[in-house]
Amino acid sequence: MKRIAESTVRRLSLYLRFLEDFEERGLATISSDELAARGGTTSAQVRKDLSFFGSFGKRGLGYAVPELASRLRDILGLGREWHVIIIGAGKIGSALAQYRGFTQRGFHVVGVYDSDPAKIGKRIDGFSVRDLATLERDVAREDVDIAVLTVPAEAAQQVVTRVVKAGIGAVMNFAPVQLHVPEHIALKNVNMAMELEGLSFALANRTGLDE
Amino acid sequence: MKRIAESTVRRLSLYLRFLEDFEERGLATISSDELAARGGTTSAQVRKDLSFFGSFGKRGLGYAVPELASRLRDILGLGREWHVIIIGAGKIGSALAQYRGFTQRGFHVVGVYDSDPAKIGKRIDGFSVRDLATLERDVAREDVDIAVLTVPAEAAQQVVTRVVKAGIGAVMNFAPVQLHVPEHIALKNVNMAMELEGLSFALANRTGLDE
Repeated sequence: MKRIAESTVRRLSLYLRFLEDFEERGLATISSDELAARGGTTSAQVRKDLSFFGSFGKRGLGYAVPELASRLRDILGLGREWHVIIIGAGKIGSALAQYRGFTQRGFHVVGVYDSDPAKIGKRIDGFSVRDLATLERDVAREDVDIAVLTVPAEAAQQVVTRVVKAGIGAVMNFAPVQLHVPEHIALKNVNMAMELEGLSFALANRTGLDE
Repeated sequence: MKRIAESTVRRLSLYLRFLEDFEERGLATISSDELAARGGTTSAQVRKDLSFFGSFGKRGLGYAVPELASRLRDILGLGREWHVIIIGAGKIGSALAQYRGFTQRGFHVVGVYDSDPAKIGKRIDGFSVRDLATLERDVAREDVDIAVLTVPAEAAQQVVTRVVKAGIGAVMNFAPVQLHVPEHIALKNVNMAMELEGLSFALANRTGLDE
């Protein structure tokens, strides 16, 4: 399929959250204007974002809330269970391993890895930290979909190369470094210092931010 | 000034990282092609991103690395020290309080807050967790620029309203909820479950991601 901009996917996630909120409150339909108002965007943007995935809603009637929510869950791949491993059992890695919001969305952490002998075998929230040396063997057996990398910057490229070779198709990288992966691998970077720079930019230039 | 898209600011942060890498390696100039190749974008995009902030580089000669790096640091507001508070001393909040990458970029954590009596007074990496009740009094005294919110979703709107009223102009929100703040406040949302949804989308649709 056509490549979709990450900002579009992010808005779909946000629309789904609003729709689930509407579902809980028992609302049957919603207009693109209302969805746009909640998401801080325009109704033209909402219609454009959804148009990538087929035809939704009826002119003048808006979108049926449960149907659109269900379609968005399908589009976002939330109809199934994804197996996640976390590589790097430091502070951020440990915090993520214990984060309940993942399981609620179908993301199941199946293993936490480190290469530091002082951390291997330690228990984090029910997980025993595994030796990174066993990564390839474990992945061959356990059907891992997503690897979350919370390793130091200087180790990250070497680790992601092993992850890709082991057959994992999606990577979330917390290391402050640009990783090189083959085109077919889905890679997302989360860099806390860069997020803060977005704010210092806004403060220094006395401007708001358009997400 | 004109509102700049968050994706543009993010690319500027990325360009700066590459330029600092080039600086360390003693390179004097770089073309927009090289900068684009490192950032996974096009040279037209690089030129457009930089054009918001004036004129850089000479046709055929490329950009002077130290000058462009220095200008980007100014643009991103990195020439000075920013005071950051973290509200919510749970796992993510504690991990962030101890994250060294912030200080390196001029972001200084000056306080960590919680409203849970079991957490108030606890020590996290040299900080004694403060009572959220003292927020307004502390902020009036300490010149706080940025508040990082790692509180539960149901508390987040109430907390951000207090933060804004106390005079803090920038907020990084980790709570999985859309916050309402006045137009002039810079707000960034970091939502780990939504980041993972970007990956499940890519896996479900067998596509890469365009950042």
